[in-house]
Amino acid sequence: MPKLHHFPLCPFSRRARLCMGEYGIDVELVEERPWERREAFFALNPAGTNPVLVEDDGSAVAGIEAVDEYLEETRSGRLTDVTLFGGNPHQRAEVRRLVAWFDVKFNAEVTLNLVYEKIDRRFMRTSDGGGAPDMAVVRAGRENIRYHLEYIGYLTESRKWLAGEDLSHADLAAAAHLSCIDYLGDVPWEVDAHARDWYARIKSRPSFRSLLADHLTGMPPPKAYADLDF
Amino acid sequence: MPKLHHFPLCPFSRRARLCMGEYGIDVELVEERPWERREAFFALNPAGTNPVLVEDDGSAVAGIEAVDEYLEETRSGRLTDVTLFGGNPHQRAEVRRLVAWFDVKFNAEVTLNLVYEKIDRRFMRTSDGGGAPDMAVVRAGRENIRYHLEYIGYLTESRKWLAGEDLSHADLAAAAHLSCIDYLGDVPWEVDAHARDWYARIKSRPSFRSLLADHLTGMPPPKAYADLDF
Repeated sequence: MPKLHHFPLCPFSRRARLCMGEYGIDVELVEERPWERREAFFALNPAGTNPVLVEDDGSAVAGIEAVDEYLEETRSGRLTDVTLFGGNPHQRAEVRRLVAWFDVKFNAEVTLNLVYEKIDRRFMRTSDGGGAPDMAVVRAGRENIRYHLEYIGYLTESRKWLAGEDLSHADLAAAAHLSCIDYLGDVPWEVDAHARDWYARIKSRPSFRSLLADHLTGMPPPKAYADLDF
Repeated sequence: MPKLHHFPLCPFSRRARLCMGEYGIDVELVEERPWERREAFFALNPAGTNPVLVEDDGSAVAGIEAVDEYLEETRSGRLTDVTLFGGNPHQRAEVRRLVAWFDVKFNAEVTLNLVYEKIDRRFMRTSDGGGAPDMAVVRAGRENIRYHLEYIGYLTESRKWLAGEDLSHADLAAAAHLSCIDYLGDVPWEVDAHARDWYARIKSRPSFRSLLADHLTGMPPPKAYADLDF
């Protein structure tokens, strides 16, 4: 069985888990805390970032940008008829544009402000930048997320899923980031009804169950986190 | 002829230009300064980032993460026998791992410290964060780049190109970032002879010529920038 090195509240790890769930691939999860700088983990991924997929033959695929396309190339159409990138180059370009929206822009404007600030820095050594969250940074993230929820709402008002009629990596990326922030209770769902409806749909998929069962010691999620009727 | 919206000293734009050069695709360059927030540009790419490729039929492909794969899907193997991602899923995973190394890690540790700090902020309004470079940030970038040159040297000691025996997007990504920093005269090439040899090889390719001819008004590059024997 392939192994996935991941951290429960890492949005990139979560997208890989959702993707494998949608393809129906069983995977063994190996929790990896990048800030501990484990030597054997850096041998798998010199950048020291999650996720890393290790196949049964020991070959490693490092980083979400490689893992998502690798899984599509090796599983979609071969082991399953599910595609998570879309059926033609223009659809795939729209999926990849939106994946970058969430993994680059949303990450810089929201996820780092909330998840990195409240989770990663809690575990990191003070000499590496660890410590209590900077509340000015947290407040900026809470402000920025509103505009992103409105963008999700704008897209899903005219499309079934974020990039079009089919579920894609765009939805998995958005949901992976939002689900980490939802674990912190920091998503103001009241901002946009369309965005909330979209999240309710993706949250109820079987691929999401493993994420909803995540539980960080000493930091339990709010009750609504795992509630499908949030 | 397709149009490419770009900014001369944007590493993501430069990778798109190098890619089109390698495929032998003629393109009309349209200079776009994202900080001017031109409405028609945001209509092409709501994230407001370069590059954006506009095909003859008016369809737009927005952001380097979409443009690189789209060009590979629509040009490689169809119009040309050049592939810039590699011949099998494992090679492609290695290319994409290294693209992320440069577009995410190098960008955050070096490019933003030097190029964003010295170029973008020079053009931006003060209310948007424009102004004189923060020299502490610049110094950190100058320190960080040394480790990245050593990593390039480490890879090219055992491989012809960064991801293996063939030129790939990994080389284009690395060279795109480094060429922007070289325009500022901030690459300490003496750090690693292998890295310097690799850059000399990619710099002498025909696809690089257009980059070496770039000239920002009021900020000419140092003489070595366009010199193939730097």
